[in-house]
Amino acid sequence: MSWELQILGTSAASPTKDRFPSAQLLQTSKQSILIDCGEGTQIQLSKFGAKWMRINHILISHLHGDHFYGLPGIITSYQLFGRETPLTIHGPRGLRELIYAVLKASDVQLKYELRISEHDTSQSLCILDQDSLRVLTIPLKHRAPTAGFLIQEKIPPRKLVAERLLEYQIPDHARSRLAWGEDGYSDAGDLVPNSKLTTPNRRPHSYAYCSDTAYHPDIVDLIKDVQILYHEATYMHDLVDLAAARGHTTSVQAAQIANLVNTQRLIVGHFSGRYQNLEPLLAECREVFSNTTLAKEGELIRFD
Amino acid sequence: MSWELQILGTSAASPTKDRFPSAQLLQTSKQSILIDCGEGTQIQLSKFGAKWMRINHILISHLHGDHFYGLPGIITSYQLFGRETPLTIHGPRGLRELIYAVLKASDVQLKYELRISEHDTSQSLCILDQDSLRVLTIPLKHRAPTAGFLIQEKIPPRKLVAERLLEYQIPDHARSRLAWGEDGYSDAGDLVPNSKLTTPNRRPHSYAYCSDTAYHPDIVDLIKDVQILYHEATYMHDLVDLAAARGHTTSVQAAQIANLVNTQRLIVGHFSGRYQNLEPLLAECREVFSNTTLAKEGELIRFD
Repeated sequence: MSWELQILGTSAASPTKDRFPSAQLLQTSKQSILIDCGEGTQIQLSKFGAKWMRINHILISHLHGDHFYGLPGIITSYQLFGRETPLTIHGPRGLRELIYAVLKASDVQLKYELRISEHDTSQSLCILDQDSLRVLTIPLKHRAPTAGFLIQEKIPPRKLVAERLLEYQIPDHARSRLAWGEDGYSDAGDLVPNSKLTTPNRRPHSYAYCSDTAYHPDIVDLIKDVQILYHEATYMHDLVDLAAARGHTTSVQAAQIANLVNTQRLIVGHFSGRYQNLEPLLAECREVFSNTTLAKEGELIRFD
Repeated sequence: MSWELQILGTSAASPTKDRFPSAQLLQTSKQSILIDCGEGTQIQLSKFGAKWMRINHILISHLHGDHFYGLPGIITSYQLFGRETPLTIHGPRGLRELIYAVLKASDVQLKYELRISEHDTSQSLCILDQDSLRVLTIPLKHRAPTAGFLIQEKIPPRKLVAERLLEYQIPDHARSRLAWGEDGYSDAGDLVPNSKLTTPNRRPHSYAYCSDTAYHPDIVDLIKDVQILYHEATYMHDLVDLAAARGHTTSVQAAQIANLVNTQRLIVGHFSGRYQNLEPLLAECREVFSNTTLAKEGELIRFD
């Protein structure tokens, strides 16, 4: 299954009448991952008909309210809906104490397993490593300790060709390593070059989420060639000084990062409430990086 | 100015795709009072164009998430919008510690004055007493310590008749107590009966907010004859046993309370997510108390 990203919130700081604060849902082949969880995220998930009981990991970039004030509501709703599967929340230090303080005050005794995994945001760490994907943190430059997330699909580089396996009589037990590029052996013990048994696999999916952050080219090496890049673009470029002072990025700067990264597609979001019409902001991005789109709430983005 | 109530959220427990959790905005002649503050309340306030910078008191009925998870967002947004006037939040014990824990974790240092006033929910207390109104708590019967709110306008019982004051030559200094029913004296020192100088004033506005609670007729004496009663009606009456077990009220029971109270109008809300169509629930209420309406998000209710 292709990956799918659903944008749930696009507003910086306070929500506006049209935009909720930051949240996104990434559906991979085996995982359902919520990235940030601003106030009202559960309302958006319901409104857009997302299958949000499946979410098993929540990634929190930093502890500013517009990125995590929706957590208590989701945690409590799962309880009310009878969730039984574990839920893991990954975020900066301080998250665990906070969540338990809120749950205690709200008189919630959880009946499902809630795991809270805190990480140091100052260095890139692998916080999740599974059969199908890994998640690395991206140290960002903001007013609070903040890390974005690089989510990488793990698929073998080669695809097996069934008829060739039959033709060369490759036994079952010898097949598993072909996908990783090794040569095969027939039943009779003859070596068969990998290239006769496999074809190149598609490129693995990958997604980088960078919010909130000042313009910070240090991240480029880590997310080089990522398939889709989400980068905050809180302001238009005339406010470049304000952006720097507040630890945010402008339209042009986000597009410059996309260029340096050599991504296929840039999605910008985390828009300041001062902009009702976002087309001029988009135009500024596209002058630097043409394949830019605005994050739109409810939109489903497929990874081709 | 007449009072105005705006309904912001009508859902019990978790929000649904159509209904936000509990919140209401009561605009009196001089005060703007938010009653409960479920997740997303600031989003609703923006959506409905409410002048929410004017809110100076927030009343929290109890510490279940669907009644207060919107507080951190509102408190933080006021900070971002440059609020300078004090804000007072009234609620059960535990509220203060919780709010400060969230603000600390979110790295918010408030620049306006936030007053948090905790009250004992087991008895009726006067928690606000001003020139124009008073607010009394209504002890309710729920799974957590819970109190509703009775908000009463304070106006004098009699209105002065300007031409009569001139006719009987009542000096300015002798006028202030006429509105409270005392007789007057002319410049010459002659007693003038109150009835010649005043007419009856309109009935003072009053509003009772009762959520969340099991069926609890003990509240009737305190809110007798209230002008408008909001009462939760989480379930239809076939679920009367479930309602009792969970500390909630059915449609029929809410209407029975309205009858006992002798209110002019009953508004029911806090609907279970199991009901998409609420007309059957309304019909059950109206069989017992005809002037019942469903709480509808965005609706403005004027106090006549």
